[in-house]
Amino acid sequence: MLLYNSPISGNCYKVRLLLAHLGIPYERRELDVVDRSNRTEVLGDLNPDLRVPTLVLDDGRPIAESGAILWYFGEGTRFVPDDRYDRAKVLQWMFFEQYSHEPAIAVVRFLVAYSGEADRYASVIERKTKDGYRALDALERHLAATDGFVVGRATTLADIALYAYTHVAHEGGFDLSGYPAIGSWLDRVAAEPGHVSIEA
Amino acid sequence: MLLYNSPISGNCYKVRLLLAHLGIPYERRELDVVDRSNRTEVLGDLNPDLRVPTLVLDDGRPIAESGAILWYFGEGTRFVPDDRYDRAKVLQWMFFEQYSHEPAIAVVRFLVAYSGEADRYASVIERKTKDGYRALDALERHLAATDGFVVGRATTLADIALYAYTHVAHEGGFDLSGYPAIGSWLDRVAAEPGHVSIEA
Repeated sequence: MLLYNSPISGNCYKVRLLLAHLGIPYERRELDVVDRSNRTEVLGDLNPDLRVPTLVLDDGRPIAESGAILWYFGEGTRFVPDDRYDRAKVLQWMFFEQYSHEPAIAVVRFLVAYSGEADRYASVIERKTKDGYRALDALERHLAATDGFVVGRATTLADIALYAYTHVAHEGGFDLSGYPAIGSWLDRVAAEPGHVSIEA
Repeated sequence: MLLYNSPISGNCYKVRLLLAHLGIPYERRELDVVDRSNRTEVLGDLNPDLRVPTLVLDDGRPIAESGAILWYFGEGTRFVPDDRYDRAKVLQWMFFEQYSHEPAIAVVRFLVAYSGEADRYASVIERKTKDGYRALDALERHLAATDGFVVGRATTLADIALYAYTHVAHEGGFDLSGYPAIGSWLDRVAAEPGHVSIEA
């Protein structure tokens, strides 16, 4: 099994984190997230959207989109609840992450810490920082009223999906000191047996 | 069952279209997508992200995010494949829609046709129009190589999710004449027994 990967991408980290928890071995091929000039050549036949993560199964069939890869491997494990409503809530938070959280927090982090062009993108960073705090507000409100995890009383794909960019939000300049429920949830996810860091 | 709805929102239309196909009755409460001043009051306890669609089940439990609502009702029906890989591919295209397609095409359509402030947002419209064509290019490449539907040989949640904003992309100024595979796929989805229009 082959993961087209970027070491700094939180979307790729989600996949690496779940596969580590599940003990599933795979190979990595690293793609550059700044210089994307070889994307069509490398991913053209595997992922029409030309993004990482893209995973290729042993039989050659590809899966793209971090949320879909998580679901493929998570189904039937403790990371996807047996209850139909809880499953829908896991997907609710995974879609929230991709629609409202990642496009703000991940993009600000990338522009500030990895693009080398933070000055050029100052107005984008300012606008998306506001959007990012709005997403963090929503997550804080939710976590303050739950049993310690995003859905239910144990880690699910929703925690893995939201942990990835939340735990490195500070690299984009986000100050999480006003988000106590998020802070203790981050500690809880990182303390899980089998957890690996984004550098692993 | 109550759907917090907007008649012009493609995200809400996805839910209405699936529920029509499945013959599931529900009530609607219409929310304004321009004036959002009452969102916290109406949705604060139901959806931390304060967006429509938000669905409240008969027992009072809420589900947000169109993709999660679709999954809740689609599981166990012909709209979610039995095969694990095909299920992941359905989610891949649903996440693609929310990450790469909707934030461009739906936003341009809203700004051009519904915001009343298209002039003010000219530069956003220009930028997101490019992003929208890039998403349409990816969808066209994919559909040109498939068996008529996004995943497999029949309608799934992926078709419903992608149809919603693609079929009204022209309202945002998108010209689909260069996308023949998308064009015939739109006709195929609309010809399905049980299909309802966005005005229904």
